[in-house]
Amino acid sequence: MSEQSRNITYTQHQVPLAERWRQNGHSSGILWFTGLSGSGKTTLALNLERRLFERGWHVCVLDGDNVRHGLSSDLGFSQRDREENIRRVGEVAKLFAQTGFLVITAFISPYQHDRQRVRDIAGDMFHEVFIDASLETCERRDPKGLYVKARQGLIPDFTGISAPYEAPLQPELHVSTQEMGVADCLTQLEAYTQTAFTHEGILA
Amino acid sequence: MSEQSRNITYTQHQVPLAERWRQNGHSSGILWFTGLSGSGKTTLALNLERRLFERGWHVCVLDGDNVRHGLSSDLGFSQRDREENIRRVGEVAKLFAQTGFLVITAFISPYQHDRQRVRDIAGDMFHEVFIDASLETCERRDPKGLYVKARQGLIPDFTGISAPYEAPLQPELHVSTQEMGVADCLTQLEAYTQTAFTHEGILA
Repeated sequence: MSEQSRNITYTQHQVPLAERWRQNGHSSGILWFTGLSGSGKTTLALNLERRLFERGWHVCVLDGDNVRHGLSSDLGFSQRDREENIRRVGEVAKLFAQTGFLVITAFISPYQHDRQRVRDIAGDMFHEVFIDASLETCERRDPKGLYVKARQGLIPDFTGISAPYEAPLQPELHVSTQEMGVADCLTQLEAYTQTAFTHEGILA
Repeated sequence: MSEQSRNITYTQHQVPLAERWRQNGHSSGILWFTGLSGSGKTTLALNLERRLFERGWHVCVLDGDNVRHGLSSDLGFSQRDREENIRRVGEVAKLFAQTGFLVITAFISPYQHDRQRVRDIAGDMFHEVFIDASLETCERRDPKGLYVKARQGLIPDFTGISAPYEAPLQPELHVSTQEMGVADCLTQLEAYTQTAFTHEGILA
C-alpha cells in the first residue's frame, strides 16, 4: 500500500444500509446473471426490472449496454480486459447494492474465477443466477446474428464457439430458458427475489 | 471501434427515467463537489445526503472512501491514474443518475479538464459545486493531518502544496465554507437541490 493509499480514511456514512432497506421495503443485493449469448439474460433482466419497479422496488440493470460504452469503454476483449470489465461491474454493482438497490447484472461472465472474485467483493450480497440454455438452442435463436459471425470466424474468442463457458457449479438459482418460456422464468425469478430480499429477518 | 465493439447492441431499457423521477418525486443528477482537501466536501456531502434521505429522496454519496478501496483500487496517484479515477467516478455517477438517484460526489478533482470531461459524459445531469475555502483555512483545519505531512514532503503531489488546484470558473453553485458555517452551507445546498431537481417542468 502506498503512502497515499494509507492516507485515505474511512468516513462514517450518515445513512446506514438498514435504514435504506426499511425505507425501500426490501433489502438489497446483486442478482448476477451468467449464461451464453442468446440464453436470455438481458430479456429476463429487463422484464424482471420492469415488474419489480411496478411493485415499487428500487431496481436497476447493469449490462454491456450501459457499461461497455461508458465505464469500460477503455477496455477491449482480451482475457485481461474481460476480467477487468467483470471486476469493475462487480464493484459498481456493490456500490448500487450498498445504496439499497437490487441490481441485476447481465453479462456472459464465462469464467468461474471471475465470478468468484465478484462473490469475494460483494459477499452475501452476491446471488449467482445461471440463465441456462444449451449452445445449440442459443445458436438457433441467435438474436443478434453473432453466432453466424462467430462461425464465420469474424468474431474471435466467442464464448461457446471459440472460447469456453464455465457453467456455475452451485448457483443460488438455476433458470432454464430452454425448458421454460419467458413468463415461467420470470415467475421463478420473482419468487426467488421475494424470498431472498424481503424475509422478515432482513427488515426487522 | 473493434469488430467486437460493433457487436455490442443498445437494448431498450424497460423503465424510462421519467417514470423513475415520477416515482421518486424528484429528478436525478450529479452534484459534483470539488475543492481542496479540508474544504468540507465530505462533511457537507454526508450531511446533505442525510437530510435529503429523511425527506424521502433517493440520494447517495460517492467519495474516496467507497471508490478508492473498490472500483479504483488498481489505480495509484500519478496524474494519469488520477484522471482515470475521475473518469470512472463520472461514469459511475452517471449510472446512478440514470437510475433516478441524486448522487453527490466528493473528490478534490483539481483539474478543470477532468471535470469538463465528466460534464461531457453526463451532460445536463452534471452540476459543478465549488466547495470553497482558502488554502490557509484548509491547512489550519487539517482534519486528517495531511497538510502537515505534505509540508514535511511525506505526500508527493499534494493538491495546494505541491500540485495545483484549478478552481471552477463557472460552477453551478459556489459554497463558501470559509465564510459560512456548516448549517448555512447546508441550507444553501438544500435550496439549490430543491430548485434544480423538483421544478414542475421536470416532473410533469
